Amino acid sequence: MEKVFASIITIGDELLIGQVIDTNSAFIAQELNKIGIPVKHRVAVGDVWDDIWQALDEESKQASIIIITGGLGPTADDITKPLLCEYFGGKMVVHQPTLDHVTDIFTRILKRPMIESNAKQAEVPDTCTVLKNERGTAPGMLFKKEGKIFISLPGVPHEMKWLMTHHVIPLIPELFHTGFIEHRTLLTAGVGESFLAELIKDFEASLPAFIKLAYLPNYGMVRLRLTAFGFDKTSLVKDIDALFTTLKEQVKEFLVVDEDIPMELMVGRLLKEKGKTLSTAESCTGGYIAHLITSHAGSSAYFMGSVVSYDNSIKKRVLHVSEDTLQTVGAVSEDTVKQMVRSVLNIMQTDYAIAVSGIMGPAGATPEKSVGMVWIAVASKEKTVTKLFNFRFDRKINIELTATNALNLLRIFIMENG
Amino acid sequence: MEKVFASIITIGDELLIGQVIDTNSAFIAQELNKIGIPVKHRVAVGDVWDDIWQALDEESKQASIIIITGGLGPTADDITKPLLCEYFGGKMVVHQPTLDHVTDIFTRILKRPMIESNAKQAEVPDTCTVLKNERGTAPGMLFKKEGKIFISLPGVPHEMKWLMTHHVIPLIPELFHTGFIEHRTLLTAGVGESFLAELIKDFEASLPAFIKLAYLPNYGMVRLRLTAFGFDKTSLVKDIDALFTTLKEQVKEFLVVDEDIPMELMVGRLLKEKGKTLSTAESCTGGYIAHLITSHAGSSAYFMGSVVSYDNSIKKRVLHVSEDTLQTVGAVSEDTVKQMVRSVLNIMQTDYAIAVSGIMGPAGATPEKSVGMVWIAVASKEKTVTKLFNFRFDRKINIELTATNALNLLRIFIMENG
Repeated sequence: MEKVFASIITIGDELLIGQVIDTNSAFIAQELNKIGIPVKHRVAVGDVWDDIWQALDEESKQASIIIITGGLGPTADDITKPLLCEYFGGKMVVHQPTLDHVTDIFTRILKRPMIESNAKQAEVPDTCTVLKNERGTAPGMLFKKEGKIFISLPGVPHEMKWLMTHHVIPLIPELFHTGFIEHRTLLTAGVGESFLAELIKDFEASLPAFIKLAYLPNYGMVRLRLTAFGFDKTSLVKDIDALFTTLKEQVKEFLVVDEDIPMELMVGRLLKEKGKTLSTAESCTGGYIAHLITSHAGSSAYFMGSVVSYDNSIKKRVLHVSEDTLQTVGAVSEDTVKQMVRSVLNIMQTDYAIAVSGIMGPAGATPEKSVGMVWIAVASKEKTVTKLFNFRFDRKINIELTATNALNLLRIFIMENG
Repeated sequence: MEKVFASIITIGDELLIGQVIDTNSAFIAQELNKIGIPVKHRVAVGDVWDDIWQALDEESKQASIIIITGGLGPTADDITKPLLCEYFGGKMVVHQPTLDHVTDIFTRILKRPMIESNAKQAEVPDTCTVLKNERGTAPGMLFKKEGKIFISLPGVPHEMKWLMTHHVIPLIPELFHTGFIEHRTLLTAGVGESFLAELIKDFEASLPAFIKLAYLPNYGMVRLRLTAFGFDKTSLVKDIDALFTTLKEQVKEFLVVDEDIPMELMVGRLLKEKGKTLSTAESCTGGYIAHLITSHAGSSAYFMGSVVSYDNSIKKRVLHVSEDTLQTVGAVSEDTVKQMVRSVLNIMQTDYAIAVSGIMGPAGATPEKSVGMVWIAVASKEKTVTKLFNFRFDRKINIELTATNALNLLRIFIMENG
């Protein structure tokens, strides 16, 4: 049985100029992986005829499934569709169901007149199978050539995602007999990648050839991922599960969760299990912790709200931090976060609270307090715990690290204090 | 004079499996573009010997500058360094200055014993020039082969960025005589890509061959970018500036700013110019608007704080939304956001305030109120303006769209009411 590989081609000058970060490739790769198709190669090219043509040639040498995104917008800088028409032979024709769909979007949903460039979205090469795009006007297109399949999708992320989930993923197992990939991922916090590697080096050395271990470090956390590949799903699952159990045991001191979920969801799960609520009082993170928590559906079950006290006047007036504290030890101090956390717990009437105050940079440092210095407090009605951190990065990373560590501190607090 | 192109190779299974989004490529492309080096190609490969080798072969056919990131961590899944050693000939040697640097990081900064895998970071192929990494332990490496340069950088974003900015970018003009690229970007809001395209189609058709127009749509905004390429910088700047002036005139009804800055920074600039302050009362965005604003250094000059009233009890207790309003018209209503915006303006004592309340999905819809329905209010001491929006996307995008439109509503409010 031959192994089936996929390649991803993303098209658009904006990717090569760096004005847009390519999130599509990650989504496509995840979805393909789930059904056992490894992505072997990913390539980004500009809106340049020869470069796109060459990418199609090259990628089809390496892979049986070529997913193409981008270049299908209604504007003149998009040359992908005529190119695909020529590449696969054939001529452009109006696809009536797509024209009806586009017309419907304009008349019924957008309530705007349709202009010529919109109608052009319904023209497709007569060599393709159209994949209906329920989320937008640019249809997906499937081409077959020499035993390979080529699927062209729009670059707008939510349209691409809808087409991947509803058309592409269901289609592939019908066309190829693929093997299985199994992943097991765990999340650790409070330990560096190299220390972890030393801790589990014997385990890593003992892994069979069909199972790989990867380290995925990210802002104060490291994810460890085992990946197994094979054609016998039952034995694959058995083998990887046994090894995953061993791995969890070896890193248990730093283990946050044995799933691929982010820290804030793990904290949310703990709160939900216990039927407890949370609020935050945020200075330096400016609402980022609240945003992380509320970016997940269902967070209203445990998250009540936040006071973002970015200015000291708000710390005083809303969170009742004493003038004396701010004058003597300052806003970035243990005393301040203690008062912030007790106040927000009281104001929001929650079971737990988090408070943070620090210097995120680049400005704001003093001789005593450097950029990256952060005080974090977590509290329940009965108890307050504080911790000082010193990060040494730039603003964005310091904000991320503060949020991760605050959530991890709360997680440990809940586990230890119930 | 031959045009110099660059290629980017990113290495790591995590990119092909989709567990990590590649932000490095966008940064590298931006920096190269600024000095007139277009990126022709970007490719991602896994931690697989043959695939990395082939990528080096392929990319060096297309480009003179090949930037490689990732695969340099201290752990065993990284095979890039031995591969580069073999690819460029030579043998691995200990680079004493790097060893001193790594030792220093552990003894002085991390205050942890150094383990074997850390010391290995100081081993490099003797065919490379080492680029010192002030931000971490993995050094950058520069190789030359057949008139091309290959630069290997670690994949940790802040380390890669430091090396790009401090070593790679200063080095390139010494090695290649490059042309110039000029970009001019403007931001529009409240108008779709296809409508804009129709509006400026004559302008677009009249552009000379060396100037390209691109549409970059993103959550209720569209950026328009002109890109000019040539070897005579003076005439290039003159030509693109003249066309940019025309473009601005043609889209003036929707123009937010004639620079490539995000909406929240444009609002911040307006506030700073006027010496005014802002606060937010956020329900459905859960702190995201405050986070957007405070993610930029200097925002403390105009942003005071936020009340994230995620739960209705907080709307009542902290923001004094009346029980009657919540009972009769509900939390997602004009009345509620009006009361929220007046309260937060008062609590935070700011000149302006934003309030939002809506249904982000996937749950929370009622027969009268569908997912994506959002009420936004903006206010000054004298005046309150409200607007109803109906987005029709998923949670993440609905949150983004709410934030963008709230900030844009405030921007227009400030411009119109002073």
